[in-house]
Amino acid sequence: MCAPFDPQADKSKDEIELGTHFLPKFDSDGLIPAIVTDIDSGDVVMFAFMNEKSLRLTLETKEAHYWSRSRQELWHKGATSGNVQDVIELRTDCDQDAVWLKVRTRGATANCHQGFKSCFYRAAELQDGQTNLSFKEESPLFDPKEVYKK
Amino acid sequence: MCAPFDPQADKSKDEIELGTHFLPKFDSDGLIPAIVTDIDSGDVVMFAFMNEKSLRLTLETKEAHYWSRSRQELWHKGATSGNVQDVIELRTDCDQDAVWLKVRTRGATANCHQGFKSCFYRAAELQDGQTNLSFKEESPLFDPKEVYKK
Repeated sequence: MCAPFDPQADKSKDEIELGTHFLPKFDSDGLIPAIVTDIDSGDVVMFAFMNEKSLRLTLETKEAHYWSRSRQELWHKGATSGNVQDVIELRTDCDQDAVWLKVRTRGATANCHQGFKSCFYRAAELQDGQTNLSFKEESPLFDPKEVYKK
Repeated sequence: MCAPFDPQADKSKDEIELGTHFLPKFDSDGLIPAIVTDIDSGDVVMFAFMNEKSLRLTLETKEAHYWSRSRQELWHKGATSGNVQDVIELRTDCDQDAVWLKVRTRGATANCHQGFKSCFYRAAELQDGQTNLSFKEESPLFDPKEVYKK
């Protein structure tokens, strides 16, 4: 296991925003937001959080690891469903408080626990003062009840 | 001004995850994460947060509004730089606690305050136990010092 990431505290704005030293900033809960896109379509397929350990494991293994806030545990994505995400590239933003993963997803290639390719399968639109959602993916790629045995 | 969004509290998991009623979930600070991609390239260009008012204004005006955590104020993106983001589509994820905006950016088409097209202009890679960043965008589209008069 490598040393933990260096903190931003003693670094200048230019070092953080224009430097070549990875200085991920974790929030007060020790988490950093992770945006996940599909390497082929470019679509956003998931949004999750990482703690320091899951970010480190992601860089080391090139398989996406997150921190599950609902289960409060390290989460190796795809461990149950088989839909492991191979990380092709990992980027960070100007102030290094978010990461963007470009992934190729194994198995049924679903990234959402509902069986859809993307968690973002609905678009919102304001109509007559009410915001309604419409489905942008026709059907799930797997049956969640079958995969998760719920 | 329309009525505020309905809360998730009295809704079932199926209503939230498979329904057509927009029920955005704001965190304990009243914020929801917003992922922003460029409508043409599909690249992630920004990551920010919205409060209820900025999400409502975004849906009403179809121009991206955020909540600036550093300035603690409503933020009409592009108001200073001219790089307003026209929102082509707004999606939400399975549990409706994040949104994804597909935008077309006006002016110099830069989305980052550093003048880059995307805030995510650096990729991270583990090399010999250290994680280094490499630039993926060659040069900024505008000079931040000129645009923001800093």
